[in-house]
Amino acid sequence: MTDDRLAAQFAFLNEADRLKSVLRATTLCDGSRPENSGEHSWHLALYALTLADQAEPGVDINRVIRMLLLHDLVEIDVGDVPIHSANGAAHASAATMQAEQRAADRIFGLLPPDLRDSFRALWDEFEAAETPDARFAKSLDRVQPVMANLQSGGGTWITYDVTLDQLDTRVGSKIARGAPRLWTWVRERALGYFS
Amino acid sequence: MTDDRLAAQFAFLNEADRLKSVLRATTLCDGSRPENSGEHSWHLALYALTLADQAEPGVDINRVIRMLLLHDLVEIDVGDVPIHSANGAAHASAATMQAEQRAADRIFGLLPPDLRDSFRALWDEFEAAETPDARFAKSLDRVQPVMANLQSGGGTWITYDVTLDQLDTRVGSKIARGAPRLWTWVRERALGYFS
Repeated sequence: MTDDRLAAQFAFLNEADRLKSVLRATTLCDGSRPENSGEHSWHLALYALTLADQAEPGVDINRVIRMLLLHDLVEIDVGDVPIHSANGAAHASAATMQAEQRAADRIFGLLPPDLRDSFRALWDEFEAAETPDARFAKSLDRVQPVMANLQSGGGTWITYDVTLDQLDTRVGSKIARGAPRLWTWVRERALGYFS
Repeated sequence: MTDDRLAAQFAFLNEADRLKSVLRATTLCDGSRPENSGEHSWHLALYALTLADQAEPGVDINRVIRMLLLHDLVEIDVGDVPIHSANGAAHASAATMQAEQRAADRIFGLLPPDLRDSFRALWDEFEAAETPDARFAKSLDRVQPVMANLQSGGGTWITYDVTLDQLDTRVGSKIARGAPRLWTWVRERALGYFS
């Protein structure tokens, strides 16, 4: 290993620090301030560790945790696109996805080639949401803001005037794909906000 | 699995959210605000993933990542005790360590017994810093604030009027124990702040 390699590793880690300044629509559980995407990524990794028994058989929790640690780094360039913003149309728009691809090129491109390729492959897998590991990771990414909204008294459901139908479509279907019991459990507790 | 089990898992995850409100002495790399212990834990897990090639043979990076995700949760009750505060005497004082043990009892005690015991075992192992996994995790916990100080123009070295000798003793020796090449590399870059 040369010093060049370490310099590239630290260039990536220093750049990653900026994710702590990307703000999300969701607040902390106590409602005191918006959550940032760095601490959100930590919380999700802790979700994976704590709720591993909710994953379908064969899911590799260590890979899920790695995906969740990396999944939001592209927001350093693109920002967080709230799932309920623009009436639900902005989050997975072609424009957003294209910008995220460019961000992934730049940010993972700071790394030595072997790490660039392995991190990028994990991020691509998460984005595609097709493997069992990625599906479970996506479920956790959707369920954590639901818990924050439940704790903070409605949160983004109120901000964006979300209906139960929209919650089922935009959030519930994604949670149910990778962790069906989690969706049953949190939906029951969310119902009171949509009467 | 019963609903009680899920309720306990979510009670722990909701309580963990409070770590995002625990402020550290170290700032973000851009110096804009103090770092919190939640985002710090994410950054450290990313350090482990990115700098895995600096660990001694036999270190299990997945276990290191799990330790780092959990290592600061006790600060929800105890707060962050900066390593250079009280002239270096507060960080590992008997009073601090006792308070952290009580915090670990309470916070991990929110979990179902199997998770309580496995998370607590990881935390105890990290604190003892004797296994290769824990030594590497501790090294990363010490090197990340050094990088933040380098990026932000001195940071806590200036706040606490730290000497090179103190840096070597309080920080360098811990980094060198688990990741000797990292200490050589960052020390060289830190020297300019201690001339």
